[in-house]
Amino acid sequence: MKTDNPFRHVAFGAVCAVTLMLSGQALAMEPLPAQPPVPADNPLSAAKIELGKMLYFDPRLSIDGTVSCNSCHNVMTNGTDNRPVSVGVKGQKGGRSAPTVFNAAFLSAQFWDGRAATLEDQAKGPILNPIEMGMPSEEAVLERLSRIPGYVARFAEVFGENGLTYDNIAKAIAAYERTLITPNSPFDRYMRGDKSAMSKEALRGMKLVESVGCTACHTGPNFAGPATLPVGKGFFQKFPTFTDNEYVRKYDFMSDTGLHSVTGREEDKHMWRVPTWRNVALTAPYFHNGAVKTLDEAVRVMAKTQLNKDLKDDEVHAIVAFLNSLTGEIPPQTLPVLPQTANMSVVGDQ
Amino acid sequence: MKTDNPFRHVAFGAVCAVTLMLSGQALAMEPLPAQPPVPADNPLSAAKIELGKMLYFDPRLSIDGTVSCNSCHNVMTNGTDNRPVSVGVKGQKGGRSAPTVFNAAFLSAQFWDGRAATLEDQAKGPILNPIEMGMPSEEAVLERLSRIPGYVARFAEVFGENGLTYDNIAKAIAAYERTLITPNSPFDRYMRGDKSAMSKEALRGMKLVESVGCTACHTGPNFAGPATLPVGKGFFQKFPTFTDNEYVRKYDFMSDTGLHSVTGREEDKHMWRVPTWRNVALTAPYFHNGAVKTLDEAVRVMAKTQLNKDLKDDEVHAIVAFLNSLTGEIPPQTLPVLPQTANMSVVGDQ
Repeated sequence: MKTDNPFRHVAFGAVCAVTLMLSGQALAMEPLPAQPPVPADNPLSAAKIELGKMLYFDPRLSIDGTVSCNSCHNVMTNGTDNRPVSVGVKGQKGGRSAPTVFNAAFLSAQFWDGRAATLEDQAKGPILNPIEMGMPSEEAVLERLSRIPGYVARFAEVFGENGLTYDNIAKAIAAYERTLITPNSPFDRYMRGDKSAMSKEALRGMKLVESVGCTACHTGPNFAGPATLPVGKGFFQKFPTFTDNEYVRKYDFMSDTGLHSVTGREEDKHMWRVPTWRNVALTAPYFHNGAVKTLDEAVRVMAKTQLNKDLKDDEVHAIVAFLNSLTGEIPPQTLPVLPQTANMSVVGDQ
Repeated sequence: MKTDNPFRHVAFGAVCAVTLMLSGQALAMEPLPAQPPVPADNPLSAAKIELGKMLYFDPRLSIDGTVSCNSCHNVMTNGTDNRPVSVGVKGQKGGRSAPTVFNAAFLSAQFWDGRAATLEDQAKGPILNPIEMGMPSEEAVLERLSRIPGYVARFAEVFGENGLTYDNIAKAIAAYERTLITPNSPFDRYMRGDKSAMSKEALRGMKLVESVGCTACHTGPNFAGPATLPVGKGFFQKFPTFTDNEYVRKYDFMSDTGLHSVTGREEDKHMWRVPTWRNVALTAPYFHNGAVKTLDEAVRVMAKTQLNKDLKDDEVHAIVAFLNSLTGEIPPQTLPVLPQTANMSVVGDQ
């Protein structure tokens, strides 16, 4: 088995909002569906979701047993770590801010730069990334899990004989992540008929995001573009579009070239998969580099860098009120008890 | 408010097993009680336990938002991290192995060196330890929590007006920890009358730990001495007692002087609070420095260093079987949803 190359799964289809609008496919705002899209080759089951939850919370998937998926995408803190950039094994800092796992199932592609087409592909990356979870190879991951009898049994139960494979680790984690959706935000309740669910200020903000132009990209069930593009067709946009302003310099938005840093293609420079608005009030700090501390400032930055507009304070506040109405209900989680190894640990002092 | 000195709460009473035996108080093996001792000044309540659980799981109690109590005392992995020594903020390694939080409520003193008399005192230490959670002062902890409205409200609910104090943080965490007990091990079921709960091998091991002499210290509800000594009277023992053997050199047992490293008193050299046997099969690696990888080896080491005995392989295996019968049921945990800060994060890029 060869080491998985995280760049192998790049979503090349940089379909942007303009294309969609020109082709008459502009999307309306819509409440969060009860179920996310599920790929045909990874159907959900209770046993698979439970196995995926175990793996998601298990720090033994990192080289020194200190970092789990949940360390940076913490389901107790809005699916993120609320840090500018995340911290992996041995105290190493990554280059980007951890996106929330909540509702990631509705995104057209994964990672800030959209280089993974699916949740399954995404899950394979951080485990092997030397500054995230730091496992040296797929083989090393499988060797470690194969020493934990409870995992071997559960993989066999869910995936059949010889079920413990790197692809199946990713499938189980992705299955669990598809349960991490946050319904019943004030916005969702409003859209379903409860006209008292949103404040006047939030309703003004809802109109503003359309009139100002934000919803050219931030639309669809996750306010991140369509969730049902063909696999590999991520919903990308250029950021920053307007570069000659103080924000771009102050927050250093040009040094990371987004999708281009993966593909090297000129047309991918500063292309990013459009991020979600759902629960955005609770996922500070903001942007791919976590450089912007507050949501107010993030709204000002976006208006200037993407639409070349300077919003008034009252417009910012109304839009922030609207964005706060997109905070949904976090699904209750029972902590897994992770499979044990009797009389020894599988983690050394790496 | 002055910074809490972790050395202030040292449990000076080095009562050793020999004293107890001489005074005729030798303790029998006993099943785990349904409830741990609860101090009069920190009664349990559902609201306090829930607040304590939130704090226990909240990485915002660390300087950079990466380490919670649960990071090292992980309730998903037997209340420990299964590492030789733990890793705190900025990838720093501590000098000792994380003891399990499970059944810590039954210990006579806390920390390997017993320097904290109570769970409350223990909880105050790691938050301010520069290589664990790294907060610079009690004031900094309170300032951060005071910016999280949900915490302010819950502290007021549980502890009354101005309830957000460092002492109350510790009280809430300790209250939660008193719920982390693991009943119904095979041993407990056996002791309560289910004579089929333990294997013949384990029963042989149960006799051996008495005849070999292990239960001179490892006795009481937690196999760690009496749980109900007066506060401040920790149940200590010298380790290693017999120092002229290969184990002591191989595993470097002399460089850490235990309680002496806290008090500087000659009589405290290499004195350690007797650790629990409960769930010991699942808390590898072993000893204060995590130097011993397997339970088999730990049993050999203890027989040699404490009793100057060389056990035969079959004796080791029987004792290990008995120790495995002390693995209890981990209480089901619902994950807390941590109180939020809207539109901003309280954690920076420290």
